Amino acid sequence: MFTFKKKDGQARIGEINTLHGKIQTPFFMPIATVGAIKGAVEFSDIREMGFEIILSNTYHLHLRPGEKLIKESGGLQKFINWDGPILTDSGGFQVLSLSKIRKIFEEGVEFKSHIDGSKQFLSPEKVVEIQSDLGIDIAMVLDECTPYPCTELYAKNSLERTTRWAARCKQHWIKIGAKEKQALFAIVQGSVYKNLRIESAKQLVDLDLPGYAIGGVVESNDKLNEVIEYTIPFLPENKPRYLMGVGTPENILNAVERGIDMFDCVLPTRDARHGKVYTHEGSFNITRQKYAQDNLPIEQGCTCQVCQQYSRKYIRHIFTVNELLAMRLTSLHNLYFYKNLMTKIYKAIEKDYFAQFKADFLKRFKSKAKTVKVHGLVERGMF
Amino acid sequence: MFTFKKKDGQARIGEINTLHGKIQTPFFMPIATVGAIKGAVEFSDIREMGFEIILSNTYHLHLRPGEKLIKESGGLQKFINWDGPILTDSGGFQVLSLSKIRKIFEEGVEFKSHIDGSKQFLSPEKVVEIQSDLGIDIAMVLDECTPYPCTELYAKNSLERTTRWAARCKQHWIKIGAKEKQALFAIVQGSVYKNLRIESAKQLVDLDLPGYAIGGVVESNDKLNEVIEYTIPFLPENKPRYLMGVGTPENILNAVERGIDMFDCVLPTRDARHGKVYTHEGSFNITRQKYAQDNLPIEQGCTCQVCQQYSRKYIRHIFTVNELLAMRLTSLHNLYFYKNLMTKIYKAIEKDYFAQFKADFLKRFKSKAKTVKVHGLVERGMF
Repeated sequence: MFTFKKKDGQARIGEINTLHGKIQTPFFMPIATVGAIKGAVEFSDIREMGFEIILSNTYHLHLRPGEKLIKESGGLQKFINWDGPILTDSGGFQVLSLSKIRKIFEEGVEFKSHIDGSKQFLSPEKVVEIQSDLGIDIAMVLDECTPYPCTELYAKNSLERTTRWAARCKQHWIKIGAKEKQALFAIVQGSVYKNLRIESAKQLVDLDLPGYAIGGVVESNDKLNEVIEYTIPFLPENKPRYLMGVGTPENILNAVERGIDMFDCVLPTRDARHGKVYTHEGSFNITRQKYAQDNLPIEQGCTCQVCQQYSRKYIRHIFTVNELLAMRLTSLHNLYFYKNLMTKIYKAIEKDYFAQFKADFLKRFKSKAKTVKVHGLVERGMF
Repeated sequence: MFTFKKKDGQARIGEINTLHGKIQTPFFMPIATVGAIKGAVEFSDIREMGFEIILSNTYHLHLRPGEKLIKESGGLQKFINWDGPILTDSGGFQVLSLSKIRKIFEEGVEFKSHIDGSKQFLSPEKVVEIQSDLGIDIAMVLDECTPYPCTELYAKNSLERTTRWAARCKQHWIKIGAKEKQALFAIVQGSVYKNLRIESAKQLVDLDLPGYAIGGVVESNDKLNEVIEYTIPFLPENKPRYLMGVGTPENILNAVERGIDMFDCVLPTRDARHGKVYTHEGSFNITRQKYAQDNLPIEQGCTCQVCQQYSRKYIRHIFTVNELLAMRLTSLHNLYFYKNLMTKIYKAIEKDYFAQFKADFLKRFKSKAKTVKVHGLVERGMF
């Protein structure tokens, strides 16, 4: 499924092949949690930007509209009208983050639906079946995404159960024939404990699955680079590596530098809905008074469809008057910014100037952040 | 400004010429109250559908972002990135409908802003100046949109003041040179009193303005056809006639039949945001359970970009999970439906089969409404 192309330092480019098409790595996946991108963005919009794969969520789709309805529709691609590859997260993270009441058993995880409070049970076998019904291209195993911080003992017990769950997922994935249609990725856990991350990686690599993810890092963002560094050497070179839920442009550059191939994050669209927009000089909040008369596009020179048409002052105005269009425009721009970043990263690795590209990008990207500090708390409060 | 082309019965087609382009009549104006169409619809979307003119609002734009900012931007067209003609309502209706505390003087109307409670004053001269600053193509006079119901005495006093205001608007419109750049339309009032509507029409026609609107009819919808019928004979044949705030497809057909040329209404986008979609077999609410497994587009055979791509079950699903995209998709479809209706009306008048077209359209459009009744209250509750 994965074709390694070349390395520049530890940064690498490659290609993932799925039934719904090829994807160049490294890539960023726009998030369509329940089958739609937030901010009234259409799949045709991100297709035009060049995105090749999206992320959706097993847990959410299981609750609504249910995998059976999607299967009857000919799979998730047909149901949502996106003809490219899809990766679905298994729901482990969502059970942790959305459901207040949950119990973890060896058999699986019991929790209350965040929608209607109904009792739900997800087992490793169940998440494999749901993802098989969804007909997506990359399925994730059920894992326990450990809370942060957590004790070493808790993390150890948890990762060992995650490994046993991954083994059960693999077995069921083969048994029901899902292996013929979709890849299954395991998820390395172990919190911020180096020995545990290594133990988790080794155990999961023994299962010989098509790809490996590093999970449980969103909450421990300051330890992100460390965790990647001591995990990567234990992951196979010939399989894709996915850093779940990450992150800022800086996070992504740091992770690519350390050998990560795949990313997803709510940031570009969530920030957009709050008026935060990305430029090569850093991000800023377009709802601020200082943009009320600013006739420039969000970013000068940006070739996205929003910057081709709309001024900062117009976007600020429609934010001020609560028009939904404001969220669509900033979401479109931010997604384009992320896609553009990934395209530049690919080219830099291809032509062996990734280190220089990263240094130049971050120097420019952080230049504005420094200016902001000077203005003090009020300015920072907007970020 | 208005070129009369031909009549079919009292229904007529023509063309309005403005500095920002020509518009075929009869037409429907999508509403961009504060400079954006609701439901995250872009101007490029409605341009693709063939809409030639939009409506915006003097009162709202005066409050936010202010006409001076828009003037500095080169006018409303430049500010919002719509290069076609724009009509702005004067704010008379909004002062009535949005502001709880208002006082009407001979000089103008005093009210509290619905945004921040600040005291505001609009005079006939002021609304002409604001609309001149906005640089739009069709300006409306300041009128008092009488509450409904109201006594004949109140309506008489009010319409006579509205006439005096219209005369002051005209004078100022000439004085400040706005006449060279934009048309000014007067608004016939008089509530549901035939003698008063006629009196109002006669007085305003004496002012010899470029166009005439019939206002104050939204609240008295059941008397709509009557009001049009006894007003129209007193309006000039060679000037455009605008029925403000109307309406349903049936309202529009009835009004075109009686000689109306111009329409605007919140219905297609407001209904869309609540899941109500229009088809030639009537409207229905797509959020209903019965569409959960419906693989058809909103309307079979519809050539809009939404029906080309998305199923009822998908749109229902994303409504259920509160995705903004749902509102965009239904808004796009409903606006297309309205544009399509106006195109068909134009052709029918051009080829002298308007009466037949109207009868056929309404027979089909109401066919579903009848079916709905059979199912009783639950079904009707959804409409």
